Amino acid sequence: MKRLFLAATAVMGLVIALPAAAQFQKPEDAIKYRQSSFTVMATHFGRIGAMAAGRVPFDAKVAADNMVIVAAVHKLPFTAFGDGTDKGAPTKALPEVWAQQAKFGEARDKMFGEMAKLDAAVKSGNFDSVKAAFGGVGGACKACHDDFRGK
Amino acid sequence: MKRLFLAATAVMGLVIALPAAAQFQKPEDAIKYRQSSFTVMATHFGRIGAMAAGRVPFDAKVAADNMVIVAAVHKLPFTAFGDGTDKGAPTKALPEVWAQQAKFGEARDKMFGEMAKLDAAVKSGNFDSVKAAFGGVGGACKACHDDFRGK
Repeated sequence: MKRLFLAATAVMGLVIALPAAAQFQKPEDAIKYRQSSFTVMATHFGRIGAMAAGRVPFDAKVAADNMVIVAAVHKLPFTAFGDGTDKGAPTKALPEVWAQQAKFGEARDKMFGEMAKLDAAVKSGNFDSVKAAFGGVGGACKACHDDFRGK
Repeated sequence: MKRLFLAATAVMGLVIALPAAAQFQKPEDAIKYRQSSFTVMATHFGRIGAMAAGRVPFDAKVAADNMVIVAAVHKLPFTAFGDGTDKGAPTKALPEVWAQQAKFGEARDKMFGEMAKLDAAVKSGNFDSVKAAFGGVGGACKACHDDFRGK
């Protein structure tokens, strides 16, 4: 387990260091990339959620395996909301993402913070901690979706 | 840099341990997931490739940052080619993926092996090694695409 912890910690720290400036040739590339990284995150986050919700028996190892992927990808979508990426391909991102960048950044950082708590909870291996922290992340996701994502 | 190496090593080892059995509710979920994880991989692999090809100056730190993401996601798509996922959403995956599973597995493992060499090369920080190893991965990608991916 210790290697996993090191991995998740390093990966979570690392992504912060990625240049915020988008490195996409075309707006549609950025849109496809952020949707793709959200999909990967949501898939593995959802597998932790299935345990948190009691739909699947809690397995600390499975939670940890999924959390490493979530930790590795959860910041990636936010490198792909650069100027000019509000259109170019179908996207649910609302104009508020670009019109209210400070507020969007706060919502993003709230999710990052809750995700760090979930990472710690998963590392603890304690189901109640995971369940509580999962709810915190879910709340941060929903709050951001309510303000910045269309139907 | 040492933390990065631990991260990449642990992540690369970890993903092997993920259950091969697909955990998708619907075939379209698996298709979307494998396409998404390929997109994330290709984006970051491409950033290493831009340096390998000389289009962007080589920066060992940038290569390492991108490699951590590549390492974290490159095995994920292959958890989502389960039986019944040959249709359900638009996919370029050819019927040969399911009809020639052993050959597909060999092509996948070839890519994993070449990717491990690229990981080592990136860790070395040596441009010529990265360039050579990048070519090896690219060749493995192309070989698999030629046999198993439609136009």
